[in-house]
Amino acid sequence: MTKLDQIRSYLTQEEAQLAIFSDPVTINYLTGFFCDPHERQLFLFVYQDLAPVLFVPALEVTRASQTVSFPVFGYMDSENPWEKIRSVLPNTHASRIFAEFDHLNVSKFQGLQSIFSGHFENLTPYVQRMRLMKSEDEIKKMIIAGEFADKAVRVGVDAISLKATETDIIAQIEFEMKKQGISKMSFETMVLTGNNAANPHGIPGTNTIENNALLLFDLGIETLGYTSDMTRTVAIGKPDQFKQDIYKLCLEAQLTALDFIKPGVTAAEVDATARQVIEKAGYGDFFNHRLGHGIGMDVHEFPSIMAGNDLVLEEGMCFSVEPGIYIPEKVGVRIEDCGHVTKNGFEVFTHTPKELLYFEG
Amino acid sequence: MTKLDQIRSYLTQEEAQLAIFSDPVTINYLTGFFCDPHERQLFLFVYQDLAPVLFVPALEVTRASQTVSFPVFGYMDSENPWEKIRSVLPNTHASRIFAEFDHLNVSKFQGLQSIFSGHFENLTPYVQRMRLMKSEDEIKKMIIAGEFADKAVRVGVDAISLKATETDIIAQIEFEMKKQGISKMSFETMVLTGNNAANPHGIPGTNTIENNALLLFDLGIETLGYTSDMTRTVAIGKPDQFKQDIYKLCLEAQLTALDFIKPGVTAAEVDATARQVIEKAGYGDFFNHRLGHGIGMDVHEFPSIMAGNDLVLEEGMCFSVEPGIYIPEKVGVRIEDCGHVTKNGFEVFTHTPKELLYFEG
Repeated sequence: MTKLDQIRSYLTQEEAQLAIFSDPVTINYLTGFFCDPHERQLFLFVYQDLAPVLFVPALEVTRASQTVSFPVFGYMDSENPWEKIRSVLPNTHASRIFAEFDHLNVSKFQGLQSIFSGHFENLTPYVQRMRLMKSEDEIKKMIIAGEFADKAVRVGVDAISLKATETDIIAQIEFEMKKQGISKMSFETMVLTGNNAANPHGIPGTNTIENNALLLFDLGIETLGYTSDMTRTVAIGKPDQFKQDIYKLCLEAQLTALDFIKPGVTAAEVDATARQVIEKAGYGDFFNHRLGHGIGMDVHEFPSIMAGNDLVLEEGMCFSVEPGIYIPEKVGVRIEDCGHVTKNGFEVFTHTPKELLYFEG
Repeated sequence: MTKLDQIRSYLTQEEAQLAIFSDPVTINYLTGFFCDPHERQLFLFVYQDLAPVLFVPALEVTRASQTVSFPVFGYMDSENPWEKIRSVLPNTHASRIFAEFDHLNVSKFQGLQSIFSGHFENLTPYVQRMRLMKSEDEIKKMIIAGEFADKAVRVGVDAISLKATETDIIAQIEFEMKKQGISKMSFETMVLTGNNAANPHGIPGTNTIENNALLLFDLGIETLGYTSDMTRTVAIGKPDQFKQDIYKLCLEAQLTALDFIKPGVTAAEVDATARQVIEKAGYGDFFNHRLGHGIGMDVHEFPSIMAGNDLVLEEGMCFSVEPGIYIPEKVGVRIEDCGHVTKNGFEVFTHTPKELLYFEG
């Protein structure tokens, strides 16, 4: 059963006539065609019992038609996209319609409502559930994306110097990755030194690398449509014992969670396992984010590994395990690997060592 | 009058009690605080007659509190953000509420509707109009962003070699920019060779640079919160006469439009001016996008320079002028500068020469 067949069978089951996709990544997932429409309109209309229709900006029609085997329609910037959609669709009568509420903005929603008088319902949970279970082929791609993340961290580590700034090291990492044919990092590469790393969402800049402190790398690449994401924290010079202890605590939390994951446990239980290690040591307040996020074609997708999420893990789910301890003005540590739930456990996509590595200051 | 005062006075005028902002760039524009919340919740609540409230993910509270001078509240991943919002806001009674419909997704909208029973209206047109008119200070930042784009194209041109791939050249450009302290390109840098440039949204890859063909650079950087965007097409070796003629035609169209722009003309007229040049030569069908887009903190914002947009241009508006001619399998040319409407005309932010430059193949 193709992914589009899965959608059609869901529509049949729900007695809905139409599913409308607006998230470019979901459209890529379903059809293999990707485009970022910016403020233009991009929709995939999947009918229960008619051929799908892909609606794209005019300048994407050629590429889209080469990718998908069903009708593609475009519109010029000067045309009204809603009138154009109405005129090209084989049927605009539907009593029950699904749309991606977590992606569709209110203006686009009103545009669609001007075409379809039916009742709209949220398709996002179904799409999330569908994308949640990775196939063998998807996991192969994620393994490749992970290998490149390992390479990228190695480049970063090789570029460490007390004369370098955070941005210098980022420049070196991304240069090497692009030279290896990686066209896109999966998010803005982060290299954070000393106190800047003590902010869980610190922003890299022209800070030079601090001595006797920790240095944090958080990066990922995108390849074959799939992403990676990893964090490593290393020591520059001789950070004091407290910093080293915080590192060890964070690593213990991560290893405990990695060891715990297997089919049948819940996302909340995984989060709690790591969190308890940090809480027991008295630093719970400084671990102020969830343990992890799903990953796949998007660097953040489902499942969310956090308190309150009772999702039972199954083989094929992919997510990050990334405890962090951030003590303002003192120390920041995060250690992150993404991986996939296997028959009996969890296999990570990234393999850069995790004992605290020391670099000469 | 501060920007927040402007919002409050708009609310008073419209007899609305509350404006809710969800676009991180708008929030940055209004407050100086930027964060990308990913799938988390980020809102700025601006009341007509109460202090504003910034609501952010927990891990952004510290940074946000250092930036803004009004109350900041955070929520943990495991908390219900809507309940948290309800509990921290000074007032959830409002009969008329504005929200950014072009940014807010339907799920978030439903979340807000669960808190506020008032009538929601679209704030996007007001925000667009506000961001449309750039102050002197904003234009200074755009000039700096433009200078970096010129530098970036120079790096790219210096990296041209028949042994290099598109991605090699991109790597070199971004490396040099990051070394100069630019942390972010404003979009994925594009270097497109030969037939790949004949696709208006071609995707760069490991194609090596073609000889006797045109090579297209489309890039921009982000600095001080503002973006640049420019396109240059250069000749490698000795492209045939046809390719050269298409280049000249595209340049003529661009120069004609640049010369035409001044306060009082409409966006549609500017588009038509360039388009007529290309249509008259018989290539109108191969210029299949609008002439330009607004630019500022976002690389694509208002105004849209296209048929049907009767917006009258005023001093301080910033946008791109980028005619393109794309003849599949034959040739692709685009020439783009962004600039600002002045008292009497239009001044561009980028100054890389535009006569066709030839590079040894």
